[in-house]
Amino acid sequence: MQVLTEVLDGRWAAVRGDIREQMAAQRPPEPCGLDVDQHRALVSEQLRQLADTGRPRLGFPPEYGGEGDVGGAVVSFEMLGFGDLSLMVKAGVQWGLFGGAVQSLGTEHHHERYLPAIMSLELPGCFAMTETGHGSDVQSLRTTATYDADAGEFVVHTPDTAARKDYIGNAARDGRMAAVFAQLVTGGRSHGVHAFLVPIRDADGRPASGVTIEDCGAKAGLNGVDNGRLSFNHVRVPRTALLNRYGDVRPDGTYTSPIENDNRRFFTMLGTLVRGRISVAGSAGNATKRALALAVRYAERRRQFYGPEGEEVAILDYLAHQRRLLPALARTYALHFAQEELVSALDASQGTTEVDATRQRALEARAAGLKAVTTWHATGAIQAAREACGGAGYLAENVLPSLKADTDVFTTFEGDNTVLLQLVAKGLLTNYRDQFADLSPIATARFAAEQFVGAVIERTAARQVVERLVDATPARDDDEIVFDRGWQCKLFEDREQHSLDGLARRLRAATKDTAFEVFNTAQDHVLHAARAHVERVVLEAFVAAVDRCSDDETRGLLDKVCDLYVLSTIESDRAWFLEHGRLSGPRAKAVVAGVNQRCRDLRPHARGLVDAFAIPEQFLRAPMLAGGEDG
Amino acid sequence: MQVLTEVLDGRWAAVRGDIREQMAAQRPPEPCGLDVDQHRALVSEQLRQLADTGRPRLGFPPEYGGEGDVGGAVVSFEMLGFGDLSLMVKAGVQWGLFGGAVQSLGTEHHHERYLPAIMSLELPGCFAMTETGHGSDVQSLRTTATYDADAGEFVVHTPDTAARKDYIGNAARDGRMAAVFAQLVTGGRSHGVHAFLVPIRDADGRPASGVTIEDCGAKAGLNGVDNGRLSFNHVRVPRTALLNRYGDVRPDGTYTSPIENDNRRFFTMLGTLVRGRISVAGSAGNATKRALALAVRYAERRRQFYGPEGEEVAILDYLAHQRRLLPALARTYALHFAQEELVSALDASQGTTEVDATRQRALEARAAGLKAVTTWHATGAIQAAREACGGAGYLAENVLPSLKADTDVFTTFEGDNTVLLQLVAKGLLTNYRDQFADLSPIATARFAAEQFVGAVIERTAARQVVERLVDATPARDDDEIVFDRGWQCKLFEDREQHSLDGLARRLRAATKDTAFEVFNTAQDHVLHAARAHVERVVLEAFVAAVDRCSDDETRGLLDKVCDLYVLSTIESDRAWFLEHGRLSGPRAKAVVAGVNQRCRDLRPHARGLVDAFAIPEQFLRAPMLAGGEDG
Repeated sequence: MQVLTEVLDGRWAAVRGDIREQMAAQRPPEPCGLDVDQHRALVSEQLRQLADTGRPRLGFPPEYGGEGDVGGAVVSFEMLGFGDLSLMVKAGVQWGLFGGAVQSLGTEHHHERYLPAIMSLELPGCFAMTETGHGSDVQSLRTTATYDADAGEFVVHTPDTAARKDYIGNAARDGRMAAVFAQLVTGGRSHGVHAFLVPIRDADGRPASGVTIEDCGAKAGLNGVDNGRLSFNHVRVPRTALLNRYGDVRPDGTYTSPIENDNRRFFTMLGTLVRGRISVAGSAGNATKRALALAVRYAERRRQFYGPEGEEVAILDYLAHQRRLLPALARTYALHFAQEELVSALDASQGTTEVDATRQRALEARAAGLKAVTTWHATGAIQAAREACGGAGYLAENVLPSLKADTDVFTTFEGDNTVLLQLVAKGLLTNYRDQFADLSPIATARFAAEQFVGAVIERTAARQVVERLVDATPARDDDEIVFDRGWQCKLFEDREQHSLDGLARRLRAATKDTAFEVFNTAQDHVLHAARAHVERVVLEAFVAAVDRCSDDETRGLLDKVCDLYVLSTIESDRAWFLEHGRLSGPRAKAVVAGVNQRCRDLRPHARGLVDAFAIPEQFLRAPMLAGGEDG
Repeated sequence: MQVLTEVLDGRWAAVRGDIREQMAAQRPPEPCGLDVDQHRALVSEQLRQLADTGRPRLGFPPEYGGEGDVGGAVVSFEMLGFGDLSLMVKAGVQWGLFGGAVQSLGTEHHHERYLPAIMSLELPGCFAMTETGHGSDVQSLRTTATYDADAGEFVVHTPDTAARKDYIGNAARDGRMAAVFAQLVTGGRSHGVHAFLVPIRDADGRPASGVTIEDCGAKAGLNGVDNGRLSFNHVRVPRTALLNRYGDVRPDGTYTSPIENDNRRFFTMLGTLVRGRISVAGSAGNATKRALALAVRYAERRRQFYGPEGEEVAILDYLAHQRRLLPALARTYALHFAQEELVSALDASQGTTEVDATRQRALEARAAGLKAVTTWHATGAIQAAREACGGAGYLAENVLPSLKADTDVFTTFEGDNTVLLQLVAKGLLTNYRDQFADLSPIATARFAAEQFVGAVIERTAARQVVERLVDATPARDDDEIVFDRGWQCKLFEDREQHSLDGLARRLRAATKDTAFEVFNTAQDHVLHAARAHVERVVLEAFVAAVDRCSDDETRGLLDKVCDLYVLSTIESDRAWFLEHGRLSGPRAKAVVAGVNQRCRDLRPHARGLVDAFAIPEQFLRAPMLAGGEDG
């Protein structure tokens, strides 16, 4: 499976290899059985060790001691997804969100002063955006930062409980400073949400004056992360605490910005933080791989009921069990390749000094869509893996419970998935022309109605390959066509195009007065169109990966995995294809039969397919897999 | 909503009312933040208090101090589903499984000697059936109980690790005795699995001689239950330790039984334990109600993004949010009524002295099917409720995390759901004629092939009402027909009939040599047919409930809830209806539109529908629901 591992490892194979080696050399973390305080202390200590490896410097600029490898930095976060996810999230808060905000929203002054201390963990920080009352609708945050020209200071204030910062990672225990998102007010006028660096604890760990810190307490999972709540009572910070890349205040209180429109500025600022969302998707993908690796290994050794040879049958030999695990495994492969492509796109975008606004918005949409689809897949697949291991899968010692509990919040943090898919649809409908991320239902309906000019299937890296496949689709009309990649690609494209056109038609009927109602009634179509888009993009990434695989045997295997991704995806949405005359009844049945066929074909390769993820063995140690058959 | 509560409370309204009052008078249990040891201690103490109320006596025979109200006993377990589920499970182990085994499998001697101490909790016990190596396939258990005629004793022995009893509730901390399922061997011959009462701890709580007790440790949830592992090293128990209602050994070692066939005897014994499965379904249903009540209350107060009136919109006003919660709520109503009907059937069957074997097997199949469908629904609906509350839903203080984690094992314990649905299909195919519960794939395929004589839609209590509705279906052909109950019932019936016929056709192709392969290839059809059956039975229970509701307004509301159950059920399986020509494309779209319509119609009643469950308020207290809109 070495060749397959190489195909999976792709461009950042070296980073992955290094981290695997480091992980293999470590004793496995054992969060099982720890209480909240112990778990937090352990993860804090591990975060410190991680800082000492220097690896977190990877994504930061060389001029401050970093290595400027943005793609590699995301991949190294992803790799943490194989281990205790609390560590991944805590690292993501420190270096991805907090460090990322300073890097992307701050200017040279902030970089010089803070980045080295952030990289070394000398300055542990928080990303204080979400409030109790506002999460998805970030523009409506209620914390204020009012400029006092006489003192040359901003006054950061929490007007009421709904405006308190909530669920903030690193806040309850370790954070010393927070990037606080607040409405910037100067000269009596609000200029929208900006980020400010506010000290929250002194050197002895006591809350800073005027700052109230509460503990969110125990959570469903991720209990190694100290989430808390922050309230500010007229806390004063210097004018330079404003992260001023996209908006600044002169000493006299004059507001200046390179982007005049408040909305556009705000979403440009938000857009620079896309890296966090991409990292979450990647980690979710790796947690899913770990769960499936455990479940497949168990299903190969667990035997129940006697078969025709008088031997007990391995449960992975039952079709029902294959259907629980193998389509999920195929989708995990598909999402892996899409993720790799997204990381490359992010890396490329960060390399350029001139930012193409449309391209940036397209990247944000891709990140949003892939995050939603990958984290929902994680929730579903890890659930299936747990159930597939029965009682053993319910015991903490067998890892699946923490995988399930830790990843559960991924579907709603770093952007609620339902909201994210709406962003995707809006981006597609407006060709990323305007304030992509403004999601108030009215604005969405109006924009879409005004700006949609017809869906054009976006190009992906695999476009040429896909076109070649589509052109080469044979004219055959038997059921074997369901295994033809050109036919599959065409079906996915057609679904996306048709869904978007239909959605636009609905939204175009909206007037100023009916925009909300029209949008709301079409909401299920919005979500369907977005999903159809993401699934097409994912397929094309898979096609590209197969295309660049030079080993025949491996390519043959990947081809079958790709079939299973495609056919199980069509299967679960086949009602749509039937309703819209894209599949006949018999052809739809052939799709279902195709899923069963590929499950059977891949059964003997299941172990190889999960082994190819090359998850360090200590993360796959579980008593349910220990010893011989009678263990 | 008082009227609606009465409809829901049904026949055992008095039991439900009593328990609500007792619950309301108690301080809420607060397992949040406890470690495993503290949680176990708390639940043990609560179990003691529950014993002191005398309520666990409800289901036991009056001659030993019980009240002989089997239905009431199940309902009282169900009510525990509103609170900490660890207590429900621990009570279920003590009085349902352990007490139930003594009652159903033992004879007068055992009843006299043990039932009073079991009811009072003076004798805490375990139900030791599952082994590490065998769970679903109980017939292949490996623990042995070999009769030694010279000593007049059974020797209970665990031959290897795979034969150790695993996941046994009450074993790690509190149990003194276990009903141990083992292969009975006498005179060198095995007579299959029987149950034996084996002391596992002495009066001081030390493991009995020859008994090894291990702790299963932390689990995903239900950490108030002390699950453990039991191994026996040639442990001697008197001949009378055998629970000998269905099989006995004379002092000289002669085996006797009223049921000659080993298989039939075994499944008859298992069948008497059906009550546990029914109680799990009921508790899962009540946990689901609690999760939905929390999520609906949150969705009414949580507002995000601005609407047409310049006010922030309650998230329950978004169609996407309604679709997450309201179809799940409708299904919860449907399953509630089906559960009530099942409990009545159980109650009736226990009243009769003469057991009709076919009827008993039909009851077991109904219990298996409803347990599978209800617990999967719980897993899905509680997941949806968690996600619908975003970050707040991830905090332990807001209850949803423990609901999710505790109920997660319900889909695989008390019978793995996938296995249970196969039992259902087999029962239907064989008209409950033979060893219903023998699920080895070969036996299943052969039985089905030999015995299937054509699917006959089973009668339910609502049969007459349903027939009247079907007959009254108007001949109209517009899309409004999707709201016609007769049309809906016919569609459900037709799907069941057609699925079963198709399945039988496939299985009938099996020969002795191909039986396994044929069965395995048809496995997805097996699961589909079983689900179609259960969903039809559930619909008919709902129809009967609506029919007996005498209040017009309430009936009107329930009618809409029933529509939503039906239409969302068809929607998620509409590919099948399309593929089999049961729905045209436009009609399928009308079904989807019908779901949206009923979501809109029920939106204003959502709060009332969850309030009607009359869950004691202290179980709905959550910080995310506290205070005013800005709390």
